[in-house]
Amino acid sequence: MTKAKPGNFFEDFRIGQIIRHATPRTVTTGDVALYTALYGGRWAVQSSDAFALSIGYPRAPVDDFLVFHIVFGKTVPDISLNAVANLGYAGWRFLAPVYPGDTLTATSEVIGLKENSSRKTGVVYVRSSGLKQDGTRVLEYVRWVMVRKRDEAAPAPGDHVPRLPQMLEPRLLGDACPPLEIASYDFDLAGSAHRFDDYEVGEKIDHVDGMTVEEAEHQLATRLYQNTARVHFNQFTEGKGRFGRRLVYGGHVISIARALSFNGLANAFHVAAINGGRHVAPLFAGDTVFAWSEVTDKAELPNRSDLGALRLRTIATRDQPCGDFPLKAGDEDDPAVILDLDYWVLLPR
Amino acid sequence: MTKAKPGNFFEDFRIGQIIRHATPRTVTTGDVALYTALYGGRWAVQSSDAFALSIGYPRAPVDDFLVFHIVFGKTVPDISLNAVANLGYAGWRFLAPVYPGDTLTATSEVIGLKENSSRKTGVVYVRSSGLKQDGTRVLEYVRWVMVRKRDEAAPAPGDHVPRLPQMLEPRLLGDACPPLEIASYDFDLAGSAHRFDDYEVGEKIDHVDGMTVEEAEHQLATRLYQNTARVHFNQFTEGKGRFGRRLVYGGHVISIARALSFNGLANAFHVAAINGGRHVAPLFAGDTVFAWSEVTDKAELPNRSDLGALRLRTIATRDQPCGDFPLKAGDEDDPAVILDLDYWVLLPR
Amino acid sequence: MTKAKPGNFFEDFRIGQIIRHATPRTVTTGDVALYTALYGGRWAVQSSDAFALSIGYPRAPVDDFLVFHIVFGKTVPDISLNAVANLGYAGWRFLAPVYPGDTLTATSEVIGLKENSSRKTGVVYVRSSGLKQDGTRVLEYVRWVMVRKRDEAAPAPGDHVPRLPQMLEPRLLGDACPPLEIASYDFDLAGSAHRFDDYEVGEKIDHVDGMTVEEAEHQLATRLYQNTARVHFNQFTEGKGRFGRRLVYGGHVISIARALSFNGLANAFHVAAINGGRHVAPLFAGDTVFAWSEVTDKAELPNRSDLGALRLRTIATRDQPCGDFPLKAGDEDDPAVILDLDYWVLLPR
Repeated sequence: MTKAKPGNFFEDFRIGQIIRHATPRTVTTGDVALYTALYGGRWAVQSSDAFALSIGYPRAPVDDFLVFHIVFGKTVPDISLNAVANLGYAGWRFLAPVYPGDTLTATSEVIGLKENSSRKTGVVYVRSSGLKQDGTRVLEYVRWVMVRKRDEAAPAPGDHVPRLPQMLEPRLLGDACPPLEIASYDFDLAGSAHRFDDYEVGEKIDHVDGMTVEEAEHQLATRLYQNTARVHFNQFTEGKGRFGRRLVYGGHVISIARALSFNGLANAFHVAAINGGRHVAPLFAGDTVFAWSEVTDKAELPNRSDLGALRLRTIATRDQPCGDFPLKAGDEDDPAVILDLDYWVLLPR
Repeated sequence: MTKAKPGNFFEDFRIGQIIRHATPRTVTTGDVALYTALYGGRWAVQSSDAFALSIGYPRAPVDDFLVFHIVFGKTVPDISLNAVANLGYAGWRFLAPVYPGDTLTATSEVIGLKENSSRKTGVVYVRSSGLKQDGTRVLEYVRWVMVRKRDEAAPAPGDHVPRLPQMLEPRLLGDACPPLEIASYDFDLAGSAHRFDDYEVGEKIDHVDGMTVEEAEHQLATRLYQNTARVHFNQFTEGKGRFGRRLVYGGHVISIARALSFNGLANAFHVAAINGGRHVAPLFAGDTVFAWSEVTDKAELPNRSDLGALRLRTIATRDQPCGDFPLKAGDEDDPAVILDLDYWVLLPR
Repeated sequence: MTKAKPGNFFEDFRIGQIIRHATPRTVTTGDVALYTALYGGRWAVQSSDAFALSIGYPRAPVDDFLVFHIVFGKTVPDISLNAVANLGYAGWRFLAPVYPGDTLTATSEVIGLKENSSRKTGVVYVRSSGLKQDGTRVLEYVRWVMVRKRDEAAPAPGDHVPRLPQMLEPRLLGDACPPLEIASYDFDLAGSAHRFDDYEVGEKIDHVDGMTVEEAEHQLATRLYQNTARVHFNQFTEGKGRFGRRLVYGGHVISIARALSFNGLANAFHVAAINGGRHVAPLFAGDTVFAWSEVTDKAELPNRSDLGALRLRTIATRDQPCGDFPLKAGDEDDPAVILDLDYWVLLPR
């Protein structure tokens, strides 16, 4: 039998199964530089050791989504190599800061399995964790994916749909952020005077700028994350497929939207949690991504006077500026919308 | 009012105004690796810690133009987001070496304002400085840009054109270079035996090689510098614009020309100053850049026997090899010329 | 005379000549991050400091082929700038591990010269070495290239064809790998349970995945290696040449094939030696690379119970999946084959 791995099929999973994913990864300033080159993020805390030190970090922490992409990439060979679709996320929470030099690993627990009525596929629910070399959990999230069966006749390996949180409670949001000396936070250097109190629920922000994606860029990004999903890299095969093209990794879209959102959210330097998200439509090289955000909620954090939390809904589009906040076309999604992300950010009070 | 920043318009500036630009940036060996991948520079001093140590540096310094691009990028959101054209540079001088781990910030002082006769635009003159975390100035330069007015009817915010130096004096050139032990400088490793004394005023050098630019490359570069000028990234908008294409950042052209110039100037490891420069024509992805240089002057540095200065004029072209030193076509610029840069380099005596 | 270097021609070489190549290079975690982004390698030893430490390395070593490409790149301006063809490799051996912070230099000795009957070209054989800052040799190999003569009438500078090894003996394979504590090697994290004993001579492995190459990617890679061979970068000139396109650096193909081979060879973390190799056909941007391998031999290493050696033949193709192990079409090479590499890897026993 060949030693090349075919990935797991629906009937290979079991409720309660723990998977230790391969390829531990030391995150370095090299990764940070590449992440900057790929997205152009400008949050002062992640960009500057001196700025981070001045407010209480030991040095600049690694961008939250870079941490996420690296952890997520490790889960792909075991969880989603035979996926038909990535259906959703819940309870996505950052638990500890990551610094250059830290080594990340990932584990997943299968928490739900539900065969589809066609018996050709089933939905797999996993709770995945990212861990540091010393065992500290830095990230956890639930995702569910539709996975093919190897053999349609195989019995379903389980039948349980877990209850998942619609939203992360504010008390769960501050763990990846040390207590900060906001008196030392330099709002000029950060790029905006707007603090927690300046944002209102219902406020909408057009992030104005657009970013065109090239094949080389999303391929470099997705390999940097050691994500092996085949649809992103192989034009020979994808050229014969449904879209005729390579698909851009959904996480690449999230990072672009996040980087664009600096323009209007310059002090929202930390993504504390993702409540849920939907890749509404695929993105392809040559498309230009735009984004807008709405503040959907605000919350104080228990026992913290340094930071407050904004709940944001960020919408990304392709080839559609966001000055009029595109979202729906009648009862349907606006055809330009590609991402709908519901998450919490922290910013100085 | 939206929190996304529209950038400053001509009438927003005042003579004497000091602007502290956003986004402090720690420069790392990750940035250095990317810079090598983008341009392929081969100067031994910047490429090798061991070589740099052997001649008196504490480690390899960061390439001068990488420092410039990072500082320049910070000024864009405040100075040139609404620019029609980048008109010129003067008095561009490197003042202290930068090493991986240093954090850079930027400030600008408005030193001149001149409304154009159309009253639709005006010229803004700024003196910008790059600073390290300890306050050391590492770079200063003057640039002037033509900036749109928000409101044509608004009064001109000032009327003063500053006097600018045509050339930096040789006594101003050595500050960013520690005293060197040239006896330990290994000319084999550096790639050429040619020292200061081997170059003559009037000498022309064809740098021979050509480099084709890809969209992904200039976008990665420009984001690495956290430069947010929209014309470089947004095909959706630029596709409808004057050129129908994204413009390559002018600094990308400078770095390509500098890297090509290694072939003929292998010991000219440090750019000490730029007297002036002109982006003669735009560059687009798919074009191939060539370059040639003329030695226009030579100078000894006061109190330094280690290094001498060459004043160079480097011309970059697109899709035109430089064996016959293209420059003029009658009274006009040769249509292949895209860059005309006047600067000082230092090399061993 | 111009100071731009034209490179050496056949009549410039002498048997016994020693060439110290230019541009020493400090390898950093920035280079490692870029190498990951370019190829997506997943070997745990090179990816994780913590994993490498656990088995006896001081930290994660730099990928063997990254070391090779950097050393090889230095030889190009002196050896192969005027090459018509890169004819072969032999005796390619890694001698010491390289870690971030090490500085690499390269030297070559001319060990053979043979003029071709046309008198327009000749074959140059060089033994090249990569060295660390402390003089440790990290790599040596022989390559031979067909180089143009400047002047057809010039006498041949020598006439000697060296004897070259067909294969490196197993006793020569372990030098670049410290003694390892295999009891601490975590096969889950490494991504496979297959050890030395699990592979059989004659076993073929389809590595399944395909990777499409973009112009920006191979240009970034080749510049990262400071390799100046003109055919990779200059569309203006190559567009008028034999292929009408830029050629992808052959080493880029090797690194892609190596990265693809993780799927089936996840524990073969160290390339100890290359017996020989052939770039069967050129690769161009837009092509998709696939690969398969055959285990052609197995060997124990003298005095080492930690690791064993597999001799592999890895075949890379373009636009041709490798499920049926393409190699020959009658007596000819299969037209899809682009690389045929014969090498030794080490993996845990």
